[in-house]
Amino acid sequence: MVSECLKNHYFCDMSNINIRALAKELGLSVGTVSKALRDSHEISAGTKKKVQDLARKLNYVPNPYASSLRRRKSKTIAVVLPEVANSFFSLAIDGIEAVAQEKGYHVLIYLTHENLLKEEAILQDFQSGRVDGVLLSVSGQTTGIDHIRDLFAKDMPIVFFDRVCEDVETTKVITDDFESAYKATQFLIEKGCNHIGFLCISPGLSITIKRMQGYKKALSDHQRAVDPSDIIICPDDPDKNYTTIRNALEQEDRFDGIIAAIEKLSITTYLVCKELRLSIPGDVKVVGFSNLSSAAILNPSLTTITQPAFEMGKAAASALFKALKKDSSMPANECIVIPSTLIVRDSTG
Amino acid sequence: MVSECLKNHYFCDMSNINIRALAKELGLSVGTVSKALRDSHEISAGTKKKVQDLARKLNYVPNPYASSLRRRKSKTIAVVLPEVANSFFSLAIDGIEAVAQEKGYHVLIYLTHENLLKEEAILQDFQSGRVDGVLLSVSGQTTGIDHIRDLFAKDMPIVFFDRVCEDVETTKVITDDFESAYKATQFLIEKGCNHIGFLCISPGLSITIKRMQGYKKALSDHQRAVDPSDIIICPDDPDKNYTTIRNALEQEDRFDGIIAAIEKLSITTYLVCKELRLSIPGDVKVVGFSNLSSAAILNPSLTTITQPAFEMGKAAASALFKALKKDSSMPANECIVIPSTLIVRDSTG
Repeated sequence: MVSECLKNHYFCDMSNINIRALAKELGLSVGTVSKALRDSHEISAGTKKKVQDLARKLNYVPNPYASSLRRRKSKTIAVVLPEVANSFFSLAIDGIEAVAQEKGYHVLIYLTHENLLKEEAILQDFQSGRVDGVLLSVSGQTTGIDHIRDLFAKDMPIVFFDRVCEDVETTKVITDDFESAYKATQFLIEKGCNHIGFLCISPGLSITIKRMQGYKKALSDHQRAVDPSDIIICPDDPDKNYTTIRNALEQEDRFDGIIAAIEKLSITTYLVCKELRLSIPGDVKVVGFSNLSSAAILNPSLTTITQPAFEMGKAAASALFKALKKDSSMPANECIVIPSTLIVRDSTG
Repeated sequence: MVSECLKNHYFCDMSNINIRALAKELGLSVGTVSKALRDSHEISAGTKKKVQDLARKLNYVPNPYASSLRRRKSKTIAVVLPEVANSFFSLAIDGIEAVAQEKGYHVLIYLTHENLLKEEAILQDFQSGRVDGVLLSVSGQTTGIDHIRDLFAKDMPIVFFDRVCEDVETTKVITDDFESAYKATQFLIEKGCNHIGFLCISPGLSITIKRMQGYKKALSDHQRAVDPSDIIICPDDPDKNYTTIRNALEQEDRFDGIIAAIEKLSITTYLVCKELRLSIPGDVKVVGFSNLSSAAILNPSLTTITQPAFEMGKAAASALFKALKKDSSMPANECIVIPSTLIVRDSTG
């Protein structure tokens, strides 16, 4: 049952015929195919013949890079993320490094600065075997996943954390974004807010979508209208974020409650309120998704959805090392959800 | 004039006979020796002969790694620093990446977590040619410099920023730590403080030493006694830092002014004061070395020595790329000082 693409292998990109494709074609695991190609004693003669026949037929040549990847000699993993000026990511890195240290691995950190082209170039670079595995939290511009699939197809284990691509079959470590945003919105409603704004960046991100859905669901569950203009998408530039939030808070019918879906937007909201002499929580109540170590000493102290950043980093790294332990295995296709916590402080009254 | 080590080359580690050693032996620049070995037309026949004769005599074999380093093909630079949960470092990274992006280079970030063994392992790893150059801000445990010298001896360009090793002959990008601490101390004296404490970590670090010297000099210039017990060295662990600062502020003769030489110690000082119900600035005035984006919205807003983090990152990266532009040149032995700014806010009254 050879698929069209594989049959017409002279007409398709041979670099795509990798162990993964062979395995899929034969209905076998990648590990089995890999072992069969290496003539392992663990594999039955019949299976070996089946694998080796198809490999020959399809002119399969082991990719030297992929082979080097499978040998996994660099003892290095990469963490690819948008930025480090964010306490979630810096804590997640600490969690990742705690596990990597134990395993004797180096950790390289690559920043995409929310730029898809950078992310593509970085992932492309990994094809050289520079690292043994990748922990990825995608950029705000990442909607397509070809660059991730390309690397995955080279048998490079990739584990997502926080900002994930649903369509890639691998381990994804996330927090309960929907439930957290629901809880934050409900809490502001209970505190008497009648006009709750939702501040975010990058509306295409998995986490933004889920937080937005949680916010909307809480509003409608409490018989509140969901007004699209209450969702403020900030441009992710410090000055422009400031102007955007300032414009929103200068409206006559301004928000009396704000959910900042991103840490830095909480800080900007405080700065705008200070400038406009709006009292928090008197005029505006604020909840921020944040792991800021200074949340408790802000003026006023900030009510937060605090994410299990360190634990998420640890879980993602553990999933990756589990895959690396076995030569050819890839991370399980599963979603690990570690819940966040609402920590009530003075910014919500 | 061949030195003993070079003469007895069968008895010494040949891996040490690199271009740098040849250059030193001949009193020539590394660049000249490199070009002579490559038979460059830029070098006179006489010099070429001198270099090639000594290389032959000493059985010099180009190190394939070093040669790969000199070719500088990875188009990647490394940034090695203690942590990213610090706004100075995250802004410095932004400055570095701004320059690297322009030059078409990847940036890898390596964290030492203030651990010398990690720093040594990371620098050792660079000998494989994984990167073309290194920007380094040393760990709090780094007093010896053998691991840095070893890498430098492989013709790997290294530029220091912020936390430097004075004894390594290369470019160092720093801020005016002495003057800034002097200014902060003087400012607290002018604000009426009689008992000023200095909080730091890692007393062996270049920046700690200079800030401490600035603090002491300001005290003595203002006819204040310098009491060693007013210098509080924190253990660089969140819980222990808290206990250390709490102990200091529970003394009967407690500080009425504090200089926090490290960002996170400002935050801990605030948390301790909140717990002990000490008013800032009423009971204790605080100045912190910090680039916190939330400094203005802390309770009270924090007076800071704000470092030119982004500019320092840019300057360090520019110095490195200047060296990389020429195949065999190394960064100039110079110190670039970019001044910090005292930003007065409410924590000093």
